[in-house]
Amino acid sequence: MTNPRTSPGVRAESDPAHRPRVVILGGGFGGLGAARALRRAPVDVTLLDRRNFHLFQPLMYQVATGSLSPGEIAAPLRSVLSAQKNVRVLLGEAVDVDPVAQAVILADGARFAYDTLIVATGSETSYYGNDDWKEWAPSIKTLEEATAVRHKILYAFEAAERASDPEEIKSWLTFIIVGAGPTGLELAGALAEIARETLRHDFRTIRPQEARIILIETAPRVLPPYPADLSAKAEKSLSKLGVDVRTNVKVVRIDATGVTVEEAGSAHEYIPARTVLWAGGIVASKFGKRLATQLHAETDRAGRIRVLPDLTVPGHPDIYIVGDLALGFRPDGRQLPGVAQVAIQEGNYAARAIRVRLKGAQSVPPFHYFDKGDMAVIGRASAVANIFGVHISGLPAWIIWLFIHLLYIVDFQSRVLVFVQWGFLYLTYNRGARLITGRSITDAD
Amino acid sequence: MTNPRTSPGVRAESDPAHRPRVVILGGGFGGLGAARALRRAPVDVTLLDRRNFHLFQPLMYQVATGSLSPGEIAAPLRSVLSAQKNVRVLLGEAVDVDPVAQAVILADGARFAYDTLIVATGSETSYYGNDDWKEWAPSIKTLEEATAVRHKILYAFEAAERASDPEEIKSWLTFIIVGAGPTGLELAGALAEIARETLRHDFRTIRPQEARIILIETAPRVLPPYPADLSAKAEKSLSKLGVDVRTNVKVVRIDATGVTVEEAGSAHEYIPARTVLWAGGIVASKFGKRLATQLHAETDRAGRIRVLPDLTVPGHPDIYIVGDLALGFRPDGRQLPGVAQVAIQEGNYAARAIRVRLKGAQSVPPFHYFDKGDMAVIGRASAVANIFGVHISGLPAWIIWLFIHLLYIVDFQSRVLVFVQWGFLYLTYNRGARLITGRSITDAD
Repeated sequence: MTNPRTSPGVRAESDPAHRPRVVILGGGFGGLGAARALRRAPVDVTLLDRRNFHLFQPLMYQVATGSLSPGEIAAPLRSVLSAQKNVRVLLGEAVDVDPVAQAVILADGARFAYDTLIVATGSETSYYGNDDWKEWAPSIKTLEEATAVRHKILYAFEAAERASDPEEIKSWLTFIIVGAGPTGLELAGALAEIARETLRHDFRTIRPQEARIILIETAPRVLPPYPADLSAKAEKSLSKLGVDVRTNVKVVRIDATGVTVEEAGSAHEYIPARTVLWAGGIVASKFGKRLATQLHAETDRAGRIRVLPDLTVPGHPDIYIVGDLALGFRPDGRQLPGVAQVAIQEGNYAARAIRVRLKGAQSVPPFHYFDKGDMAVIGRASAVANIFGVHISGLPAWIIWLFIHLLYIVDFQSRVLVFVQWGFLYLTYNRGARLITGRSITDAD
Repeated sequence: MTNPRTSPGVRAESDPAHRPRVVILGGGFGGLGAARALRRAPVDVTLLDRRNFHLFQPLMYQVATGSLSPGEIAAPLRSVLSAQKNVRVLLGEAVDVDPVAQAVILADGARFAYDTLIVATGSETSYYGNDDWKEWAPSIKTLEEATAVRHKILYAFEAAERASDPEEIKSWLTFIIVGAGPTGLELAGALAEIARETLRHDFRTIRPQEARIILIETAPRVLPPYPADLSAKAEKSLSKLGVDVRTNVKVVRIDATGVTVEEAGSAHEYIPARTVLWAGGIVASKFGKRLATQLHAETDRAGRIRVLPDLTVPGHPDIYIVGDLALGFRPDGRQLPGVAQVAIQEGNYAARAIRVRLKGAQSVPPFHYFDKGDMAVIGRASAVANIFGVHISGLPAWIIWLFIHLLYIVDFQSRVLVFVQWGFLYLTYNRGARLITGRSITDAD
């Protein structure tokens, strides 16, 4: 920490009032976890985010499918951290870093000097080089995308009701989800419930129950990284819900009217569908890419930055990377997954490492991921979970899923609201946020 | 009803299966009220709306000020009318009417034939000819506008926290509301509470309590159509909340950085303010204007269509106008106000008139508005009400306001959610939907 400070207004290190400045970029699970874990540390924390809220990403699919309102899965970062006096929250988008001057540069040109930087800027959706698919197959990474997806799904049924050509009706009632990871399964399960239950009695011409929901996966089974028996159980549950699961199938093209797929060893097949949702891969955030360049850091194909066992970047002991942007490994060499648990634990670890180093320790014990397990929900009373190596499915897994998700929602008010929404959804199949907003239907056409 | 039918697929009147077709345009208080009141009538009802939901407009200001999520004040028209088998709901925007052929024409060219038409397309915001003000002074007429206003209000505090120039900070912390009708008062009161309570402990540099909230009204008092004693009480309550009420003041100009006003007999004054909200007048919907032209109907300055005592348009006994678009009068000659109660009662009346005429009656008793009173809420434990001529203010008026608004929310699930949100708001001052969404901050700048 002997670099010169070039930022204006930076206090000299000899100033006794100078407390180490920790700048955290991103208020997701990793960044917020780090900020909270620095609660009692003698540091000045600045948490910068482009948005003013922390988002409970695991329930995003419920916003996209009209069960929850955006406000119910988002907590204002300011109010979450209101009582923690050593943190200030600022709205701003980091676009660059100056590792020599130890400063972060924002989109509006402002510079923030740091002694330690925690980068938790996460990931964005990857279309694997087919960026033109984005227009026809939105993902649900941001709240705006989730409400746009909600619009798309609900509008499809409305358009089908208004249409008269049977082929057109069929293509409005065909929903394709690309990618059978947890998000793909959640979307497919929720769509099945919308078509078969929620909208059941609401239309006069079409029968929503006849909607086709197709889940496409390149790998030979759904939930590829899960144990094989859970994948099989999940696939069975999906079939029971009427979801057409197609594994070993690759998407070749997506356009306004449908998807062209290629089954291993077969010819191309064109499936007409007006609603295609992307639950495919992720790639490092734009800032993450810039950071990797500036630090000459090693990245994987998705742009994740390889970190040392203490989550710092090689050659930059003052820069921690946590969450989706970090390329970390388990002791057995397997890559850590991009899930909330990993991000939270990494954020907490970075905070602890900073505290330990402030006390004069030369080294800190390496980050160890405590794997509590994985779970994916498919629908009502249906989920699969691998908890501490125990494989659970069906109702018990679903109850655990409900409980854990309610528990992890950051603010109590949202927890109560989500609980109320889920209660109604369970009892009546009604979805409390079935709004087509954002664009008028004339724009959408 | 002897006009030729030009629409394709229209059944002949001799067809015994032909039931009179009632087309309702708009699913607000008037249109939804009419549809529900036709529950047991031997008619086929088609309810057309541009949006898929009924909106509880009186609570819109709470979406704009972050207490409620859009989903909590909106109910899908389809699910509200799901059990009523003689109604079909269709998404579509009416752009024209052919009164001779008795058909409505939609934006996409589709035609809907009617035997009776109920027009409930409502109103939109009027800037009294200054449409360039719209960019700087949004109103809260649509859900999209309400979330944009929420963005604007919350972003102002964020920008103030980031700014360093005292003048700039001051202009970010100055909020001007134009128009002191019920909406203007609601916005001013909620803004005062946000600044003084909700955000109180959330910032490190600025003091949100120091925000200036200015309510501007051209008339000599707030709530001009209310009894003078209630206006005086409302003004006192606003002052107590720290709102700067300026009556007899006319807005001359609004731009990106502030508002120029003119006090009666004084020179122009320029007030720097980054957040200006418009709670001014309304004007007939675009379709309403087109309709007036097509029917050669008489309108007032705001484009409202003058209706006969049975709410039909002179010369067009098959066309009813209800809600904000109708220019109706009380027996004493005073114009009916553009409020939910009038729209609901007019919608119900139109449905009743249709039923009575179907039974062969030549004439129906005229519409009579049953005036239960008016109320406006200012803030916590503070409202004014004029109920059956009894003037109430303060806590009792507020409790009545809460009770009536909860009661009138169309669907039960929303009622529970709103109740939970209000409970938390009351106890903690926390606002459950404090999200800056819609545009990234880089766009906003």
